Amino acid sequence: MSDTAVPAHAGLRGRLHAFIGHPRVQAGILVLIVVNAILLGLETSPRAMDAAGAAIRLLDKLILAVFVVEIAIRLFVHRARFFRDPWSLFDFTVVAIALVPATGPFSVLRALRVLRVLRVLTIVPSMRRVVGALLGAVPGLLSIGMVLVLVYYVCAVIATNLFGSTFPDWFGDIGRSFYTLFQIMTLESWSMGISRPVMEEFPYAWAFFIPFILIATFTMLNLFIGVIVDAMQTVADAEQAETLQALDHARDQIEEDVHAEVRALREEIRALRTLLETRGGP
Amino acid sequence: MSDTAVPAHAGLRGRLHAFIGHPRVQAGILVLIVVNAILLGLETSPRAMDAAGAAIRLLDKLILAVFVVEIAIRLFVHRARFFRDPWSLFDFTVVAIALVPATGPFSVLRALRVLRVLRVLTIVPSMRRVVGALLGAVPGLLSIGMVLVLVYYVCAVIATNLFGSTFPDWFGDIGRSFYTLFQIMTLESWSMGISRPVMEEFPYAWAFFIPFILIATFTMLNLFIGVIVDAMQTVADAEQAETLQALDHARDQIEEDVHAEVRALREEIRALRTLLETRGGP
Amino acid sequence: MSDTAVPAHAGLRGRLHAFIGHPRVQAGILVLIVVNAILLGLETSPRAMDAAGAAIRLLDKLILAVFVVEIAIRLFVHRARFFRDPWSLFDFTVVAIALVPATGPFSVLRALRVLRVLRVLTIVPSMRRVVGALLGAVPGLLSIGMVLVLVYYVCAVIATNLFGSTFPDWFGDIGRSFYTLFQIMTLESWSMGISRPVMEEFPYAWAFFIPFILIATFTMLNLFIGVIVDAMQTVADAEQAETLQALDHARDQIEEDVHAEVRALREEIRALRTLLETRGGP
Amino acid sequence: MSDTAVPAHAGLRGRLHAFIGHPRVQAGILVLIVVNAILLGLETSPRAMDAAGAAIRLLDKLILAVFVVEIAIRLFVHRARFFRDPWSLFDFTVVAIALVPATGPFSVLRALRVLRVLRVLTIVPSMRRVVGALLGAVPGLLSIGMVLVLVYYVCAVIATNLFGSTFPDWFGDIGRSFYTLFQIMTLESWSMGISRPVMEEFPYAWAFFIPFILIATFTMLNLFIGVIVDAMQTVADAEQAETLQALDHARDQIEEDVHAEVRALREEIRALRTLLETRGGP
Repeated sequence: MSDTAVPAHAGLRGRLHAFIGHPRVQAGILVLIVVNAILLGLETSPRAMDAAGAAIRLLDKLILAVFVVEIAIRLFVHRARFFRDPWSLFDFTVVAIALVPATGPFSVLRALRVLRVLRVLTIVPSMRRVVGALLGAVPGLLSIGMVLVLVYYVCAVIATNLFGSTFPDWFGDIGRSFYTLFQIMTLESWSMGISRPVMEEFPYAWAFFIPFILIATFTMLNLFIGVIVDAMQTVADAEQAETLQALDHARDQIEEDVHAEVRALREEIRALRTLLETRGGP
Repeated sequence: MSDTAVPAHAGLRGRLHAFIGHPRVQAGILVLIVVNAILLGLETSPRAMDAAGAAIRLLDKLILAVFVVEIAIRLFVHRARFFRDPWSLFDFTVVAIALVPATGPFSVLRALRVLRVLRVLTIVPSMRRVVGALLGAVPGLLSIGMVLVLVYYVCAVIATNLFGSTFPDWFGDIGRSFYTLFQIMTLESWSMGISRPVMEEFPYAWAFFIPFILIATFTMLNLFIGVIVDAMQTVADAEQAETLQALDHARDQIEEDVHAEVRALREEIRALRTLLETRGGP
Repeated sequence: MSDTAVPAHAGLRGRLHAFIGHPRVQAGILVLIVVNAILLGLETSPRAMDAAGAAIRLLDKLILAVFVVEIAIRLFVHRARFFRDPWSLFDFTVVAIALVPATGPFSVLRALRVLRVLRVLTIVPSMRRVVGALLGAVPGLLSIGMVLVLVYYVCAVIATNLFGSTFPDWFGDIGRSFYTLFQIMTLESWSMGISRPVMEEFPYAWAFFIPFILIATFTMLNLFIGVIVDAMQTVADAEQAETLQALDHARDQIEEDVHAEVRALREEIRALRTLLETRGGP
Repeated sequence: MSDTAVPAHAGLRGRLHAFIGHPRVQAGILVLIVVNAILLGLETSPRAMDAAGAAIRLLDKLILAVFVVEIAIRLFVHRARFFRDPWSLFDFTVVAIALVPATGPFSVLRALRVLRVLRVLTIVPSMRRVVGALLGAVPGLLSIGMVLVLVYYVCAVIATNLFGSTFPDWFGDIGRSFYTLFQIMTLESWSMGISRPVMEEFPYAWAFFIPFILIATFTMLNLFIGVIVDAMQTVADAEQAETLQALDHARDQIEEDVHAEVRALREEIRALRTLLETRGGP
């Protein structure tokens, strides 16, 4: 993927490179991902597992084997370059998760095997573009996001100090306060669920919650406006470039036209001069 | 509708074509739709049904009969073309629903009879434009919508695997997980209603819910921004076209002006030449 | 207000016209509105009423009397024109409400006396502009708003038919269904509060609620985008006008420049001609 | 900070000025703020306080002492100018809070000590810009914000009058009504939590709540659109300025070109004249 610029290698590596990048092979991988997605969905259904559990598990293992081979080939072909391509790294990670034995403390990894399905995002160009655009919007949000994190931290410490001992479930430690403040920022049950009960113990608690809501939503709003304005800037820049080009073109045309006209005039003046010179001779 | 370009047909078909497209007939149909809307509203009121149930049902059937005749005429007039016009297909479907006997498994269709009222959307041009614009925004959202569906699917499988057995009402199967994740994305009771109870069993469940909310709302936000940017692009393109036209016009005027001036100069030079030539004779 | 174009009238009417439009009188009215706002606020406090209820009521009546006199003067001065100015009509209505005896079925009007405070909006120019801008955005939303109303009506009839008998509090009649659908559109408790209980009786109710939410919020979103795009269009038009003017100006300058240059050239050619003619004599 | 334009002072004041503005000293302060943030976070954890409470409190006091010295130096260096810089005032206030003995009625100030951490916002230039941009958006919102406050006040008085005696927790006095209306505007439990219970006593209460929601959210929406349009205006103005500059540049180039061409023509005409004059001699 994205390595069409790599020269053909001689021998096995070259042949594997051509094989793994072939459109048919890519399409086959895509089909396997989709089949795998359906299998992983069926695995959540006890009825389907009772009827065909063995077959589903076997197919799943076979597809996983194909993925492992595919990643191994790409690793062999691209070597160090493989790890510099974030899409390849993503493919590697989601396949690797499935190979870790999901026992003991890692049992949660069993559930994460379905992340493999997200490989669709790396293999279909239009989806890759969408994901790229989504991720591309993130850096522009970093500085405002850091301000938001700072406001969060300060408010979490204040809330823990003020309300922590009375409402340990909501504000018992900094982690719980962070979670509760996130819930409040999404406006979910902020008043009936959190703020009104707190106000029964601390009548002035609204002086904490309402400013927090105003600041957090206003900051989120500006974060959001940042994304819109960035997108609009891109549109406006393209239009601008087109206008400037048209302006340059018009200028060139005018100048060319002036040159042509003046050249014609000059011809006439020169003809006049020649007339004068040839007749002035005798 | 939208068939003013159709040549007048001779005979019955031509006369029916002129009749069904006549503004008065169209206005009559619109009045019938509105009356039908009121009747269908009255049918939900037991008091109105007690007082005049028979009359309401009779009127409803009469209006339905008129609609059937109207659609039949349009079918006869337009033939195959009828089924290629999405608005006509819509009219056909909502009238056909009312003809299916609403018994047994189809009893829900009784409630759908009111969809007929949506024919107002196909018959009033300004509403047709609005609906057209709304539907026109959909294709631009498809690729980002597919990313959202994929994220949903993966999260639904994970949630079913992790929480399904403990919270069967919310995450018991993939369908329930889809529904609950949709509820979470709308931020409705996501914390007090779903996430906090789940966290009592799985203390790290926030590591699933909060990233899901961030990813889902950020993707929705970008979907939404896509619609805004598309609309702005249209505005900007129109302005751009106007600017470029004005630029072309200005260039033409300048060039014309230069031509005129140079022509005058040339005249003078030619006059000079003539003067020289005529006087240079002797 | 906004009648500076009215010629000065002779006699009483003219003097009253000058008086009522005088900045000091206007400022006095504004002060009275604000004082009245505070009084009406104090009237809600039993403690304030116990301490100074009689004085508050008396002051309130005095201020009301001043307002009645002011409106009467404006009516006398502007006559029929008074009722053509929407701001004046608003002032008239909110003062008139206070004069209706708030007894029996009109007791709710007592609470509406505070609407008088909204006269601030009609008397402060900057607020008048804001309100004007807010109302100015409404007409552009009418056609999409009508589509939304139609979708609401259809869904309300369907919901009443399907769920009315089982959930009379939520969908018992069309009015209740309208209210509940509005609540669902605002996403307030739509799932835990309404949809999940309904789904326990009608397992496929999600097929009604989720499409309704998607259609209603997408339509609201487009309504909202309409307002943004309108506002942007205004900005873009202003910039566009400025660009076109600058383009015209540049063209004029170029043409003027070309004229000046060509005039100079012509002068030289004419001088040449004169030289030829004067010397060609002999 | 922001005083690089201040000339170097002789003596102690000048040396302190150079010292306090030195990048290394600034970086040191930033590190101290971050360490302080972590300490204040640890103070909320009983486990951390049991293990190292004395050390944490000591470090906190030491850092506070450094801040006091820093602010004192800046006060000595900048004198009256210190209080004219809002960022300096902010630093002064958040440090001063920590010095007020947090006992009796001021015990809440203990919790506010963490506001010190917000000094990161004043010391990191990129965050200062973000905060500046956020605050810079506020003045443009004032007039629409005042309309919103007025609508709130009027609705709070109405709600207190109508529902106050029946629902004292929600609408018992103007303050409670304000809070409840704010909750309703955020759409949190507005229907299931507030409006439906109220409608059981006052069946027409929806005629108050639904218009309030529509007006409040539409006004908020316009407030929000105001921020977007302002941001877009800034982008559009920059593009506009660039276009106008390019237009000027093109005009200058065309005029220069015309001048050059005409100058060449003039040369030729002058040469012709010289030819005529020198030869016309005899």
